[in-house]
Amino acid sequence: MLKLSILVGARPLNLPKPLLTEKLKAFIDEDVGLGDVTTDVLLPKDIKAVAEVRAKEAGVLAGVEEVKTLFELLSLKVTHSLRDGEALNPSCVVMKVEGDARSILVAERTALNILMRMCGIATATRNLVDKLHKAGCHSRVAATRKTAPGLRFFDKKAVSVGGGDTHRLRLDDAVLIKDNHIAMVGSVQEAVLKARRATSFTKKVEVEVRSVDEAVEAVKAGADIVMLDNMTSADVGEAVNTLKRLGLRGKALLEVSGGVTQDNIIEYSEKGVDIVSLGALTHSVKALDLSLEIVGH
Amino acid sequence: MLKLSILVGARPLNLPKPLLTEKLKAFIDEDVGLGDVTTDVLLPKDIKAVAEVRAKEAGVLAGVEEVKTLFELLSLKVTHSLRDGEALNPSCVVMKVEGDARSILVAERTALNILMRMCGIATATRNLVDKLHKAGCHSRVAATRKTAPGLRFFDKKAVSVGGGDTHRLRLDDAVLIKDNHIAMVGSVQEAVLKARRATSFTKKVEVEVRSVDEAVEAVKAGADIVMLDNMTSADVGEAVNTLKRLGLRGKALLEVSGGVTQDNIIEYSEKGVDIVSLGALTHSVKALDLSLEIVGH
Amino acid sequence: MLKLSILVGARPLNLPKPLLTEKLKAFIDEDVGLGDVTTDVLLPKDIKAVAEVRAKEAGVLAGVEEVKTLFELLSLKVTHSLRDGEALNPSCVVMKVEGDARSILVAERTALNILMRMCGIATATRNLVDKLHKAGCHSRVAATRKTAPGLRFFDKKAVSVGGGDTHRLRLDDAVLIKDNHIAMVGSVQEAVLKARRATSFTKKVEVEVRSVDEAVEAVKAGADIVMLDNMTSADVGEAVNTLKRLGLRGKALLEVSGGVTQDNIIEYSEKGVDIVSLGALTHSVKALDLSLEIVGH
Amino acid sequence: MLKLSILVGARPLNLPKPLLTEKLKAFIDEDVGLGDVTTDVLLPKDIKAVAEVRAKEAGVLAGVEEVKTLFELLSLKVTHSLRDGEALNPSCVVMKVEGDARSILVAERTALNILMRMCGIATATRNLVDKLHKAGCHSRVAATRKTAPGLRFFDKKAVSVGGGDTHRLRLDDAVLIKDNHIAMVGSVQEAVLKARRATSFTKKVEVEVRSVDEAVEAVKAGADIVMLDNMTSADVGEAVNTLKRLGLRGKALLEVSGGVTQDNIIEYSEKGVDIVSLGALTHSVKALDLSLEIVGH
Amino acid sequence: MLKLSILVGARPLNLPKPLLTEKLKAFIDEDVGLGDVTTDVLLPKDIKAVAEVRAKEAGVLAGVEEVKTLFELLSLKVTHSLRDGEALNPSCVVMKVEGDARSILVAERTALNILMRMCGIATATRNLVDKLHKAGCHSRVAATRKTAPGLRFFDKKAVSVGGGDTHRLRLDDAVLIKDNHIAMVGSVQEAVLKARRATSFTKKVEVEVRSVDEAVEAVKAGADIVMLDNMTSADVGEAVNTLKRLGLRGKALLEVSGGVTQDNIIEYSEKGVDIVSLGALTHSVKALDLSLEIVGH
Amino acid sequence: MLKLSILVGARPLNLPKPLLTEKLKAFIDEDVGLGDVTTDVLLPKDIKAVAEVRAKEAGVLAGVEEVKTLFELLSLKVTHSLRDGEALNPSCVVMKVEGDARSILVAERTALNILMRMCGIATATRNLVDKLHKAGCHSRVAATRKTAPGLRFFDKKAVSVGGGDTHRLRLDDAVLIKDNHIAMVGSVQEAVLKARRATSFTKKVEVEVRSVDEAVEAVKAGADIVMLDNMTSADVGEAVNTLKRLGLRGKALLEVSGGVTQDNIIEYSEKGVDIVSLGALTHSVKALDLSLEIVGH
Repeated sequence: MLKLSILVGARPLNLPKPLLTEKLKAFIDEDVGLGDVTTDVLLPKDIKAVAEVRAKEAGVLAGVEEVKTLFELLSLKVTHSLRDGEALNPSCVVMKVEGDARSILVAERTALNILMRMCGIATATRNLVDKLHKAGCHSRVAATRKTAPGLRFFDKKAVSVGGGDTHRLRLDDAVLIKDNHIAMVGSVQEAVLKARRATSFTKKVEVEVRSVDEAVEAVKAGADIVMLDNMTSADVGEAVNTLKRLGLRGKALLEVSGGVTQDNIIEYSEKGVDIVSLGALTHSVKALDLSLEIVGH
Repeated sequence: MLKLSILVGARPLNLPKPLLTEKLKAFIDEDVGLGDVTTDVLLPKDIKAVAEVRAKEAGVLAGVEEVKTLFELLSLKVTHSLRDGEALNPSCVVMKVEGDARSILVAERTALNILMRMCGIATATRNLVDKLHKAGCHSRVAATRKTAPGLRFFDKKAVSVGGGDTHRLRLDDAVLIKDNHIAMVGSVQEAVLKARRATSFTKKVEVEVRSVDEAVEAVKAGADIVMLDNMTSADVGEAVNTLKRLGLRGKALLEVSGGVTQDNIIEYSEKGVDIVSLGALTHSVKALDLSLEIVGH
Repeated sequence: MLKLSILVGARPLNLPKPLLTEKLKAFIDEDVGLGDVTTDVLLPKDIKAVAEVRAKEAGVLAGVEEVKTLFELLSLKVTHSLRDGEALNPSCVVMKVEGDARSILVAERTALNILMRMCGIATATRNLVDKLHKAGCHSRVAATRKTAPGLRFFDKKAVSVGGGDTHRLRLDDAVLIKDNHIAMVGSVQEAVLKARRATSFTKKVEVEVRSVDEAVEAVKAGADIVMLDNMTSADVGEAVNTLKRLGLRGKALLEVSGGVTQDNIIEYSEKGVDIVSLGALTHSVKALDLSLEIVGH
Repeated sequence: MLKLSILVGARPLNLPKPLLTEKLKAFIDEDVGLGDVTTDVLLPKDIKAVAEVRAKEAGVLAGVEEVKTLFELLSLKVTHSLRDGEALNPSCVVMKVEGDARSILVAERTALNILMRMCGIATATRNLVDKLHKAGCHSRVAATRKTAPGLRFFDKKAVSVGGGDTHRLRLDDAVLIKDNHIAMVGSVQEAVLKARRATSFTKKVEVEVRSVDEAVEAVKAGADIVMLDNMTSADVGEAVNTLKRLGLRGKALLEVSGGVTQDNIIEYSEKGVDIVSLGALTHSVKALDLSLEIVGH
Repeated sequence: MLKLSILVGARPLNLPKPLLTEKLKAFIDEDVGLGDVTTDVLLPKDIKAVAEVRAKEAGVLAGVEEVKTLFELLSLKVTHSLRDGEALNPSCVVMKVEGDARSILVAERTALNILMRMCGIATATRNLVDKLHKAGCHSRVAATRKTAPGLRFFDKKAVSVGGGDTHRLRLDDAVLIKDNHIAMVGSVQEAVLKARRATSFTKKVEVEVRSVDEAVEAVKAGADIVMLDNMTSADVGEAVNTLKRLGLRGKALLEVSGGVTQDNIIEYSEKGVDIVSLGALTHSVKALDLSLEIVGH
Repeated sequence: MLKLSILVGARPLNLPKPLLTEKLKAFIDEDVGLGDVTTDVLLPKDIKAVAEVRAKEAGVLAGVEEVKTLFELLSLKVTHSLRDGEALNPSCVVMKVEGDARSILVAERTALNILMRMCGIATATRNLVDKLHKAGCHSRVAATRKTAPGLRFFDKKAVSVGGGDTHRLRLDDAVLIKDNHIAMVGSVQEAVLKARRATSFTKKVEVEVRSVDEAVEAVKAGADIVMLDNMTSADVGEAVNTLKRLGLRGKALLEVSGGVTQDNIIEYSEKGVDIVSLGALTHSVKALDLSLEIVGH
C-alpha cells in the first residue's frame, strides 16, 4: 500500500492568477523603479511591436503561465507559446508577444529572469528523471526547501514541470524531524512518537536518520517517511535490506538525501529507495539561455 | 580623466535595517506559513541553545549583515561572526548564534538559503577578479540585471563583496541603449543623441554596439559608456585599437559583455577594455555549501 | 500502525513574533484609523496606568501570546498572565498590563476582540473533547477550513489550545477530495488513484465518501483518510463494521464530518471513528465575555 | 430635532471594488497557499462548469457584492443572484456561477466563509429589528466595534443589510467616552466638556453613563449621545423619565448597551430609548448554512 | 448648546507608533532604493556623530513625534527637541540627534521633507488663528480634504498643531452633502432628510449651500452643519442674520468655505460664523526652511 | 563633449500602469475608509453620469495619465482629455469622465488632489523655463529630492512635464557629495577621488562646493558635476570664469543651487552655468485650481 509510484502525469502547482500577479508586480517594481528612462526617451508612445522569446540552447520549458501573466499585466498579448514541459532547441521560438513596444522592453528582463531560472530548474530535474528512467530505476527525484528566498512557488513549480516531486512546501505542511531536532529530543524513536501523538492527523511524519539502526528505529516508531541522510550508497543498500529482512520495508517510504549528484544518483536509486532528493536542483541553478527580440513593429 | 580605476575598497550596498527587515520577514513568512509544526511539537518552549554556521567548502563570505538581521528579527543574538569578504575554509565557523532553540531552527533554512547564495555569488566574482589581477589585467568585473527576481539587493551586494561592480541597479538609474532600442530608433548615433538631449544630466548614457564601426559611432555621438556586445575578443581588440587611433579611446568607457566566461575573460580583458560583465554571476549561481548545527543547549 | 492516538500534549501553532506582529498591526490600523480621538482628547500624554483583563464567565483561555504581542507592540508590559489552556472563572484576572494609559485604551478593543474569539473557540472545543473523554470515546475532535477569513491562524490555534486537531491548514498541505471533485472525476477510486499518483509523497490523501460502499472503495484505492460525510450514525457504524469485516479498518483513518453537534457527537464517536470534525467550532463562535479595566494610575 | 427616526432605507456600506479586491485577495491567499493541490491534480485545465450557491436554512442574504467580486477576481461570472437583504429559504438558489471548474473549487470555501458569516449577522440583526417593529418599538438596533479583527467592513455591512445601524466605524470617527476614560478624567461632566472643546466640530460626542444622575449630567454637559451602560430596564425607564421631566429628553440621543439580548430587547426599547446596541451581533455570530454545488460541466 | 467654542487646548491626532513607523518606512524606502551610495562610499561604518536640525526662518514647529520616530527607526537617538506648537526663530536648534553618522545622513532628507511641510502647514494655520484672535473673532479655522495624497495624517495633524480644526478625516466619518450631490438628488431639503434617515446616528450631517434661502432650507431640514459655499461676505452676513431672525441660528453650526484667504478671513469671520475653512492650508503649502548639520563626530 | 544641451523634447517619467495603480489604490483607500457614506446614502446605484474637470486659472496641465488611471481603476471612462504639457485657461475643460455617478464622486477629491498638485508643479517649472528661454539663457531648470514624502514619482514627473530636469531620483542613482559628507571626509578632493574609485562606473559623481577654490578642486579631482551651493551670483560668475581660464570649464557640468528664486534665476543663469536647481519647485507647491462638475446624468 505504501509503495510509491513514479510520479505520473504530475500536475504542477498553480497559483490563482491574482496571487501570481501580486508577485510579478513586485518583480517589475524592483526592476523599473520610477521608470525605464532609456525606453521612455527613445521610443514614441503607442508604437505596436511584435517580439519573440527564443531559446539559445536545448532544455525543458517551464514558466509559461508565469511569464504570460507578466506580459498580460503590462497589457501585452501572447499570441503563440509552447507549453510547460516541452523540449526546447537552440533558436526555437518559445513565445510570441504583441503590443505596445515600450511595455515589451520594460517587461523583457524580468520575463527572461523568471523564464531562464525556471527552465534551468526544469531542465536539470528532467535530466535526472530521464537518467533514472533509462537505468530502469523507480525512485522519484525530489527537491528540498533550498529554494531562492521569495521564489519558492516558482522553484517548486519548475521542479514539478521537470517531473520532480516538490517535497515539503514549507515548515507547516508536514513534519520533518532533522538532526538538530533529534539531538535536542534524545532519540529518533522518542521524536517520532512525540510527533505522531501531538501533530494533526492530516500530516505525514518524516525523520532523518544517519545509520541503519536508526532507520529501523524510525520505521518501528511509526514514521511515514524515513530519510537516509548523508549515507554512502552501500549503507543505503544495507538499510533497505535490513528493513526488508525485518518485514518493515513496506511500512515507510525511504528517501535518500545529501551528497546525491548527477553522477551517483543511479547508484543510490538502484538500492531500491523510493525518493532521492537534491538541494542543488534549486540552490545551484544553471539558467537556460533565452533571449527576447523585437521582430516587427 | 575617464580612465576607470580598478574598483578599490569597494563599499558594498547597505540597506537601512528596517528596509532589510521587511524583505527578511517576507522570506520567513514564505517558509514558515502557520508555524514550524515539527519544532513546535518536539521542542519545549524557552530552551536556550547555541548554534554554529559552518562552511563546508572554501569560498568568500557574503551576507553577514543580512543573516545577522534575520537572526535578530527572531530575537536571536549573533555572538561571533566573520566579516563579509573574508575567506572561508571547509568546516570553519562562520557565525555563532544564541537564543531560543525553537527560533534558531525556524530561522535555519532561510538563513542558509540567503547565505549560501550570497557566498556563491561573492566567491565566483572574487575568483574572476583575482584571475584578472594575477594576469595583470585592469578591467573591472561587473554583474548585470540578470538577478533572481526579488533578490536584486542581495545579488548585487554579493557581487560587490566579491570585488565586482554592481552595474545598473534598475531601469531608472542610467540609460542603457540595447539592440532592441537601436532597431526601433534607427541608428546608434540617433539613439545616443536623443538620449543625451532628453535625459537628466545626472545619468550616464551607455550604448550596446555590435561592430567596430558602431563603437566609433557611439563614442563620437557622446556615449559615456560603450558596450561591445557579443563580439569575439579579436573584434574587441580591433575596436580598442581603432578608437585609440582616432584619439577617441579616452572619451568613453569600454565594456565587454556577452559570451564572457571564466575561460576567456583574460583574453577579452587583455585587449584593454575597462569593464567585463557577466550575467552568469547572478543568473547561474552555484551555492556555497554551509550548514547550521546546534552545538549546545 | 495507523491507529490514531488521542491528541496528547498537543502543541498549538506558533507564529514567529515578527509575523504575528504584522497581522496585529493591521488589526490596530483597522480600529484606530488616524487616531483614537476620544483618548487623545481626554488623557494627558505620558500617564502610566495598570489595567486588568478579567473573565466575566467560565471558559478556557486562549490567545495569551497573541494579545501579549499586541500589548508589547504598543510598548505596554504584561506583568502577569494565566496561560493558554487554563480554566477561567467569572471575574478571575486573566492578565495585568502596565504602561502608557493612552496606549492601553487604544489597544483595549482589538485585544478583547482577539481574546474573546479565541477563548470562545477554545472553550467550545474543550467542552467537546471533555465530553468524549468522559464517555470513554477515543476520537479526536477536529476543526475545518470554515474559519473567519483572515483569522485562520488564530482560529486554528484556538482549536488546538482547546485540545482539538487543526485539520488541513489550507488547500496546499494535504489532498482532500470532496464531492464536487468526485463528481467531475467519475468515481472515488479513480480520484484517489489519480491523487496518489500525481501528488507529492509528503502529502496525505483524504477523500469524502457518502456511503459504506464508497468507504470500502476509498480504503481499497489507498486513501490515507476517509471522511464519512453527512452520514447517520447508524451508517457510520455500518461503515466501521464493514471495514473491520474486510480487514481494512487499520488501512486508513476514519473521519466523521457533517451534521455533528454537541448533542450527537458521542453517538458518532462510539461507532469507533478516529476523528469527528465540526465546522461550527470556527464558523459559529460564541465569544467568551472578557473586559479590560484600568485599576490604577 | 434630535429625535432619531427608525433607519429607513438604510444604504449599507460600499467599498470601491479595487479596495474590496485587495481584501479578498488576501483571503484567497490565506486559503490557497502555493496552490489547491487536490483540484490541480484531479481536474483537467480549462474545463467549464456551472455551480450553484444554495441556502440550507432560512435567513437574510448579505455579502452578494463581496462574493461576486471574489468570483470575478478568479475570472468567474455570476449569471444570477438574489440581492442583499432578500429572504433565503432552505435549498433556494442564492447565486449561479460559471467558468473554469478549477477556479470555482478554489474559490468555494473562501466565498462560503464570507457569505455564511455575513448572512448570519444580517439574519440575527433582521430578527431583532423585526421583533422591535412588531412590538411597535421605535429604537434602532446597532452593532458595536466588537467585530472580528480584519473583518470590520464585512461585519458592519452585514449589520446594515439586516437593517441595523453600524455605529462607530473605528476610533477616529466619533468621540465615545467610556468608563475607563471617565475614571481617569474625574467626572462625566468634565469629560464631555473637554471633548466638546477640543474635538473637531464634525464629530459627535457620546458618553457612557452608569446611573440616572450621570445621564442627566451628560445631557447638561452637552453630549450628543448618552449611552446607558449595563443598566436594568427599570433604571433605563427612570433615566428616560427624569430627562423628560427636566425637559432634557430632546437634547441628546439615548442608547442602551450592555446586557441586551433577544429576550429583553423589547423591555429595554419600550422605555423609549433611541438606540439599543448589542456586541453579540458581531462577536458571537451563528453562520447561516450555505453550500456550493457543481451542477453542470 | 450648539454654539461652537474656539478650539481650546486642541489635542492633535496621534498615530500609534507601529502604524506611524509603517508610513515612515515607506518614505525611507522611496528615498533610499538599494542604498545611499554616496554615504556608503565616503563614510566608514560605525562612526558616531551628532547633528542638529535648525530653523532658518520663523514659524511654528510641527512634526516632532513623526521625525523622532523616523530617527529612532534608524536607531538614532533624539537627545533634545523643542515641542510641537513652539515658535521657531531663524537659526534656533529644533532637535539634536545622535548616533551612527551614516544613518543620520540617510535619514536627513526624508526627515526634513516631513518637518518642512508640517511646519509650513502649522505656521500658516497659526497665522490665521492668531489673526482672528487679535481681531476678536471667534470662528475656528479648519482644513479640508485637499491634502497631499498619502499624507492626510501628517497634513491634518499639522493643522491641529497650528490650532486649526481637522474637519472630516475621510469620506466615511461624517456626511458632507456637496453641490454635485444636491444636483443629483434634487434639493437641499431632500438631501438632508435622506441623509438623516439613512445614516448612522453617530455621524453629523453637513450640507453645502449656495444662497441664503438654501441655508434656511438646510437648517430647517435638520442639518447639523451648514456650509456657506463660495458666498461673498455680504451674503454670509445676510445668511447669519436671516437665521437669527427666524430663530434658527442656534440649530446648526455655520461654516464658510471657498474663496477665503488671509486677506478676507476677518471680513468673513466677523459676520458671526462658527468655522472658516481653507483648502490652501494643505494644498498650497509653503515649506518652512530647516536644515540638518553634523555638529560633531 | 560635456556641454549640456537644453532639455529638448524631454520625455517625462512613465510608470507601468500596474505600479501606478498600486499607488492610486492607496490614495483612494486613504480617502474612502469604509465607504463614502454621503454618496452611498444619497445616490441610487447604477446611475450613469458625465463629469468635467475644469481649470479655474491659467497654467500647465500635468497628471493626465495618473488621473486617467485613477478613473479607470474605478471603472470610469475618460472620453476626452487635453494632454500633459498643454496650456490651461480659466474654465477650459481639461477632461471628460463618464460612468457610474457614485464612482465619480468617490474619485473626485483624490483625482483633484493629484491633478492640482501636479499642475501646480508643472506650471511653476514652465514659468522658470520660459523666463530663462526669453532671456536667452541656456541653463536647465532642475528639481531636487525635496519632494513630498510618498509622492516622488508624481512630483518629479510634473517637473519634467513643465520642461525641468528631474535630477537624482533617490539616494542610489548617482553620487552627490554634500557639505556633511565633505566635513566628515576632510576635503572635496579626497571625497571625489574616493567616490570615483569605489562607485560603480554607471554612476556620475556630483559634489557640492562653497567657494571658487573648491570648485576648481572638484573639477580637477574628476567630478562629473559641480554644484555651486548657496553662492552669490557674483561668486558663481567668478567660478565660471576661473574654470574657463584654467581650461577646466568643459570638464564638468556646473549646477547652481540654494537661494535661487524666480527673481534672481536669470542673474545666476547668465553667468553661464549648465543647471539651476530649486527645492521650492516641489517643497512649496501652489496648487492650480481645478474643479470637477457633474454635467449630465
